[in-house]
Amino acid sequence: MKPVNVGLLGLGTVGAGTVNVLRRNAEEIERRAGRGIHVTMAAARDLPRQRACETRDIRLTDDPFAVVNDPAVDVVVELIGGDEIARELVLAAIRAGKPVVTANKALLALHGQEIFDAAHEHGVAVAFEGAVAGGIPIIKAIREGLAGNRIEWLAGIINGTGNYILTQMRDRGLSFGEALAEAQQLGYAEADPIYDVEGVDAAHKLTILASIAFGIPLRFDEVYCEGISRVTVADVGYAGELGYRIKHLGIARRREQGVELRVHPTLVPERRLLANVEGVMNAIMVYGDAVGPTVYYGPGAGAEATASAVVADLVDIVRALTADPGHRVPLLAFQPSAIADVPILAAEDMETAYYLRLLVMDKPGVLADITRILGEFCISIEAIIQKEPEPEATHVPVIITTRTVREGEMDQAIRRMQALPAVMNDVVRLRIEQFDG
Amino acid sequence: MKPVNVGLLGLGTVGAGTVNVLRRNAEEIERRAGRGIHVTMAAARDLPRQRACETRDIRLTDDPFAVVNDPAVDVVVELIGGDEIARELVLAAIRAGKPVVTANKALLALHGQEIFDAAHEHGVAVAFEGAVAGGIPIIKAIREGLAGNRIEWLAGIINGTGNYILTQMRDRGLSFGEALAEAQQLGYAEADPIYDVEGVDAAHKLTILASIAFGIPLRFDEVYCEGISRVTVADVGYAGELGYRIKHLGIARRREQGVELRVHPTLVPERRLLANVEGVMNAIMVYGDAVGPTVYYGPGAGAEATASAVVADLVDIVRALTADPGHRVPLLAFQPSAIADVPILAAEDMETAYYLRLLVMDKPGVLADITRILGEFCISIEAIIQKEPEPEATHVPVIITTRTVREGEMDQAIRRMQALPAVMNDVVRLRIEQFDG
Repeated sequence: MKPVNVGLLGLGTVGAGTVNVLRRNAEEIERRAGRGIHVTMAAARDLPRQRACETRDIRLTDDPFAVVNDPAVDVVVELIGGDEIARELVLAAIRAGKPVVTANKALLALHGQEIFDAAHEHGVAVAFEGAVAGGIPIIKAIREGLAGNRIEWLAGIINGTGNYILTQMRDRGLSFGEALAEAQQLGYAEADPIYDVEGVDAAHKLTILASIAFGIPLRFDEVYCEGISRVTVADVGYAGELGYRIKHLGIARRREQGVELRVHPTLVPERRLLANVEGVMNAIMVYGDAVGPTVYYGPGAGAEATASAVVADLVDIVRALTADPGHRVPLLAFQPSAIADVPILAAEDMETAYYLRLLVMDKPGVLADITRILGEFCISIEAIIQKEPEPEATHVPVIITTRTVREGEMDQAIRRMQALPAVMNDVVRLRIEQFDG
Repeated sequence: MKPVNVGLLGLGTVGAGTVNVLRRNAEEIERRAGRGIHVTMAAARDLPRQRACETRDIRLTDDPFAVVNDPAVDVVVELIGGDEIARELVLAAIRAGKPVVTANKALLALHGQEIFDAAHEHGVAVAFEGAVAGGIPIIKAIREGLAGNRIEWLAGIINGTGNYILTQMRDRGLSFGEALAEAQQLGYAEADPIYDVEGVDAAHKLTILASIAFGIPLRFDEVYCEGISRVTVADVGYAGELGYRIKHLGIARRREQGVELRVHPTLVPERRLLANVEGVMNAIMVYGDAVGPTVYYGPGAGAEATASAVVADLVDIVRALTADPGHRVPLLAFQPSAIADVPILAAEDMETAYYLRLLVMDKPGVLADITRILGEFCISIEAIIQKEPEPEATHVPVIITTRTVREGEMDQAIRRMQALPAVMNDVVRLRIEQFDG
């Protein structure tokens, strides 16, 4: 069979990685796909620039729409990033009947509904394995590998930069700022790190994972999102004393009243695999009612790791290129007519256990006041630790871990504790997940 | 669309689990597959027996061929086990043009070539996610999720019983025999445990994994296979002192001259995720040239975990039921015409690092003799530890770890050491893998 011609939008890190992987593994890929897959045309800004891949046999242009519209291009790979022009390009490709592969999580989290509706209307495939957790085939695992399950929850370390920062804070006692600066120097973090450290990137990915796990629409604007910039070395240390590690997790959980979607720093018991995922690596734990707990681990970013996912999508698409759309795997795991508009729970209706850190005056009765307030809101205390005061200090840290409670109750309890004259700091509140099933 | 009728061969643990999962998650599964999937007929021995699933709406028979031949059965699920009758049934289903789902690793390891040839000839799908690592979607991950990679190696804990035994030996100091007896009491090990503890079951699964990872024929009889029955608590302890845990691994590695296929107890650095997989859980590490290291973790056995894989296969098959075979994923990951008959290396040509334990007379010159022999075979020593003798004892244990060496050289070196009058035991030899890329 004649080879499939790929048009590439974007020749940056992942674009060049994709060209290199397709070329280096051409034989291996054709043995699997049954046809060759060649990048024949690519759009890039700054055309004369030195690139990380060979482009001699690729027609280059600075107009991405020229790639989408070229009649010789069979499949479009969108690796431009951003969400506005990418959206126009992807929609144009779909309208032209061309399958699309994209690794653009922002695009799908923000405009996914429009894109998948258009893809369904035109009977065109849109594949996006590279949009979540780089090279880990997590989309395929959830969408197809666990298709027999009612998925109860999933939780993932889905931003490598954030995990690198938290790992350095624990291993080397760096402050958040120091670890971030180092991540930027190493090229892990963007110059504007807000997407990584404030959880926006993780929320994009969580939006996609939740949609394919539960069969719900993409609802980025309803994800509760809290970053790691306020995590302190002190909290990392106290968490360690209690047998926990702090990880920045994206969590989606099915509850009776709806679905929880949340991104926040989380205390995880140190024996869990998720707690032992270090540096820039990613991992996602998925709990299905039939299979039980499963974990998927690997590099969440990088030129060739993401290219691995892009090429896997290309192989899937090439195999089904001339097949009836009814024979394909549904793009979002569930049939379009079966997407269920389940409510996403507000933050106050979410339920987790908590870690609290208070700085209190070192005098009798303070602990009694605090525990009384927790009791009034029916919040069960799991552990309470009053640290020794530093010499000369008049304040002592108090660490409290609780059992699972509705967030609305905890909000009120914290407001009441905050109002006690003996409480000197803004009460630090982190969430705890046991992940024991 | 009208539902798909499944004929089930075998109503044991996994069979009943499959019936239960299909019924409980019927709505969720139909939302994904676009059609209902119903077990309408089943073959079982001992018909009147109490079963772990509801069978009221299932036609029961004690003749499995009646299920295969029933015109109302669209898809056959083989969960009988064993390899002779299962082989006949699966071939009969294929000849009747009916897709087959099987979780039978022995069947595929021993007769896979014949079965996949027949499936290819008749344009019929044979799916087998449940045959390896229970509910972990490892077949799909390797076959499709990593399709852009040249897979360099994979290593897996793919027998839960063996991993349970090794975990108890380490955590509680049980002997192999004690841990095995406990596993049998808990129902993890068969009454005849030889398949689990001597590595036969793991070798079946490794045969399948290697075929889809490298695109090579199924070659069970060329797998080097060593069990865990001779692993002692002493070795578990010494390995721990050196920073390793002993795991029973199946390893497939691409080498320039061919492919290594081996199952044996292995020392793994304790920080690796594989070293931290406990009890009956399974995990497989796969290294692809583009993606780097990835790990897949979950329950490797159990009624519903395996049923999860069986149902995922059913969903895949149902989606593609009327599709042209050319549009389907190749059953063994690579196109049938692209399977490469790469040589499987003999044991003496494999390369690993080693852990050796010798019991030697406590007198001068013995260590010099031993290290001289290793030197003659160009075997680099990484560490050598001579333990303190017990009071009154005339012999002392010596532990040696080496760098990577060809197994043939190590065989000769061990024979020479064995011949030293000061060496009192059969030299204990375990392999070490670092898994650092």
